Amino acid sequence: MFEKNMKFAYLLDFYGDALDEHVRSVMRAYYNDDLSLSEIALGEGISRQGVRHLIKKGEESLVFFEEKFSLAKNHDNTLLACELLNEAKNSISQNENSTKAAQLIERALEIITKGN
Amino acid sequence: MFEKNMKFAYLLDFYGDALDEHVRSVMRAYYNDDLSLSEIALGEGISRQGVRHLIKKGEESLVFFEEKFSLAKNHDNTLLACELLNEAKNSISQNENSTKAAQLIERALEIITKGN
Repeated sequence: MFEKNMKFAYLLDFYGDALDEHVRSVMRAYYNDDLSLSEIALGEGISRQGVRHLIKKGEESLVFFEEKFSLAKNHDNTLLACELLNEAKNSISQNENSTKAAQLIERALEIITKGN
Repeated sequence: MFEKNMKFAYLLDFYGDALDEHVRSVMRAYYNDDLSLSEIALGEGISRQGVRHLIKKGEESLVFFEEKFSLAKNHDNTLLACELLNEAKNSISQNENSTKAAQLIERALEIITKGN
């Protein structure tokens, strides 16, 4: 059974450009355009088994890149840190308790530095 | 003339683990341990020309990775953003003009989001 794990679609956004051209084309057809293995095989002029092989290779590369570079994880952390910083800014502009703003900045700093 | 550009030593910190094992070993000997081409050739049991070739290959991979993933650039941006956020925190704790803290957060947000 060949399963489609959508975490690869997410990783593809970050590392797609770094994949081998043929692997990238097949991965995008499978994960972004949601084509079936047979449809991709027909389009690429290779066997269904050949498509499986390229997808497997692409998935391994994506996992390898994320383990080494953590771009997806850092992106998620950055979004979270930005939320906290916007909250800190609002807190300041509304003249709320300044301790709250300082705490929000502190948490954002922790997330940013831990994620890098 | 074979020139040593120290930006590669910096990029090696970020992408060294992702290089092919043999290339990584030669790159670290050259950029981190500052060995000469001849010394590396002797240690690796290959020709001086072979060492040059591996270093060239390693440098190309580092440039490729940085173009795709910008880890070094993002790291520099993160350090800068953290400085600004620490300044914002100090500004709040010293009960200075709250506009200053909000502006520092705003600049940090710009740097963080532009860099990702």
